[in-house]
Amino acid sequence: MTAPLFNRMALIGVGLIGSSIARAARAQGLVRSIVATARSVETRARVAELGIADRVVDSNLAAVEGADLVILCIPVGQCGAVAEEIAPRLAPGAILSDVGSVKAAIVRDVGPHVPAGVHFVPAHPVAGTENSGPDAGFAELFINRWCILTPPEGTDPGATDKLATFWSALGANVETMTPEHHDLVLAITSHLPHLIAYTIVGTADELEQVTRSEVLKFSAGGFRDFTRIAASDPTMWRDVFLANKDAVLEMLGTFSEDLATLTRAIRRGDGDTLFELFTRTRAIRRGIVSIGQDSDTPDFGRPHE
Amino acid sequence: MTAPLFNRMALIGVGLIGSSIARAARAQGLVRSIVATARSVETRARVAELGIADRVVDSNLAAVEGADLVILCIPVGQCGAVAEEIAPRLAPGAILSDVGSVKAAIVRDVGPHVPAGVHFVPAHPVAGTENSGPDAGFAELFINRWCILTPPEGTDPGATDKLATFWSALGANVETMTPEHHDLVLAITSHLPHLIAYTIVGTADELEQVTRSEVLKFSAGGFRDFTRIAASDPTMWRDVFLANKDAVLEMLGTFSEDLATLTRAIRRGDGDTLFELFTRTRAIRRGIVSIGQDSDTPDFGRPHE
Ligand SMILES: NC(=O)c1ccc[n+]([C@@H]2O[C@H](COP(=O)([O-])OP(=O)(O)OC[C@H]3O[C@@H](n4cnc5c(N)ncnc54)[C@H](OP(=O)(O)O)[C@@H]3O)[C@@H](O)[C@H]2O)c1
Ligand SMILES: NC(=O)c1ccc[n+]([C@@H]2O[C@H](COP(=O)([O-])OP(=O)(O)OC[C@H]3O[C@@H](n4cnc5c(N)ncnc54)[C@H](OP(=O)(O)O)[C@@H]3O)[C@@H](O)[C@H]2O)c1
Repeated sequence: MTAPLFNRMALIGVGLIGSSIARAARAQGLVRSIVATARSVETRARVAELGIADRVVDSNLAAVEGADLVILCIPVGQCGAVAEEIAPRLAPGAILSDVGSVKAAIVRDVGPHVPAGVHFVPAHPVAGTENSGPDAGFAELFINRWCILTPPEGTDPGATDKLATFWSALGANVETMTPEHHDLVLAITSHLPHLIAYTIVGTADELEQVTRSEVLKFSAGGFRDFTRIAASDPTMWRDVFLANKDAVLEMLGTFSEDLATLTRAIRRGDGDTLFELFTRTRAIRRGIVSIGQDSDTPDFGRPHE
Repeated sequence: MTAPLFNRMALIGVGLIGSSIARAARAQGLVRSIVATARSVETRARVAELGIADRVVDSNLAAVEGADLVILCIPVGQCGAVAEEIAPRLAPGAILSDVGSVKAAIVRDVGPHVPAGVHFVPAHPVAGTENSGPDAGFAELFINRWCILTPPEGTDPGATDKLATFWSALGANVETMTPEHHDLVLAITSHLPHLIAYTIVGTADELEQVTRSEVLKFSAGGFRDFTRIAASDPTMWRDVFLANKDAVLEMLGTFSEDLATLTRAIRRGDGDTLFELFTRTRAIRRGIVSIGQDSDTPDFGRPHE
């Protein structure tokens, strides 16, 4: 238990990320009280039932009242409008943050609405699963994952430090970078992989020569892992691609060139080029396992042994 | 325990697949004895140490002597030469099979060497992990996975049935199809996913704007899952792409068109097209989970709760 860093934390949106923050912040004693809200009556009722917030309120405005930490845990495309809505009630000295998977668009859309005296520190915890909603969250989600802060120029360093301390206490490693660099990094480590997974699952579903039943039955050969990623929330991901268009298009360009090179190698029967690449990519896997960002237990679709 | 189906099973190659067959066949009492061999002294020594075969011999020729079931568990590109090598010692009435991930090329390369009186029944268990070698195998690998048999025209139905019974006893569901159809189905459910994963991991590794260290640290956003696939054995996969060139190129063509459509939607800010696809792909995931080809436990890189 750490001493509480904040008096009242307001969570706007209580899905996978918001509910994980609530659970972890309470488990660590980081905030004296948690006020939460979500768009629908159903989600608010479920959050109340789960008991992960001290108070569940009906409106975004009511939620932020008196909060010294406000975190937007909603799809990227909603952040601008919600910031505009809550701005009049944000307490002076409060920290306003978010968890959006894109950062330049958040700075562009939210920044202009932030009242003087409120500290705007955008954040992105790079952690998640393919599930959504308040039941999907768990307190351990952020442990040994990275949380990236992208404070706009001129942000009070004290506010940034305080939010960094908060995320560290949730178990995350914290790094600070510009919103633009964040968007490039995530375009390759997250956005492009999702786009590719969505595409190939769609391709498989529309083939004339291979039935959907065959695709499902024989999915254990690799396809299965793509469907997991392609099961992620459609609203969240639509917003990500619309908000990070330039970086995603840039990475897509490079990927397409590389795919063309490999296609040519296959067409020509050039085994050496294939072998060389397939050997190089193994080293990257080893790197990810060695820094603890994935387990080296083979995943074959169910527990074994 | 079933009554033994075969008297002596010879395994040529004892990696992930061969060693899993050995373990499972013994656990189920399907064969009276297992003779195994592998190319290198090291692997043979390790197999002897593991004790998963009754006898480990030094040569492919010695292995098949007196066996009524011979299974080639080696990379696809090796099968033709090994079939030619062992042909003179194959016992009349024996079943010769394999586990190669491509089937038309196997029929083309192995078929001509099969002596009269020997039954050639190619097979492909659609099950695996990203690991290789004799230590990677386990007896449960094939349970509730599919094994595809692709007997060439004119194959003795009794031999096909007997091999089907063997694979069922290992826990697999068995399906029979032509080698050509197998290669199309696997091109989309396995080969293209691997090619895409190898490509994107390679792309990430060569970017100028994003360092390798950043790629590793922030891989939890989706990239991580691709690196698992892209850590698969380079020799095996080089052989797969060389041997299933036409079907892979065909699927690549369709995939590239679909990717171009999605790229255009992003460029134009057409959120509806993205949302529609992202919603459709979720249904496929549900199908895979509902038929038991993957678990619905979220994978976030380590066990939790
Ligand atoms: N999922 C991941 O892996 C992941 C990882 C890192 C960051 N993120 C980011 O985290 C954010 C939330 O993602 P999530 O996975 O937690 O989503 P989620 O599980 O779908 O939850 C979204 C929550 O936001 C609420 N909401 C939406 N619009 C709202 C509005 N205008 N006012 C108030 N509440 C609103 C929803 O309420 P209702 O249920 O009532 O609609 C729901 O409670 C996104 O920006 C995403 O980019 C996600
Ligand atoms: N991995 C999968 O997920 C998977 C799934 C289904 C089917 N398959 C197919 O199964 C086959 C084997 O794959 P695997 O993953 O088991 O490979 P692996 O773990 O790399 O094992 C390959 C084995 O073949 C031996 N070998 C190679 N060339 C040989 C030769 N000329 N003579 C005798 N032994 C030789 C190797 O011996 P050394 O160790 O001495 O080199 C090793 O024991 C491949 O055709 C693959 O397409 C693989």
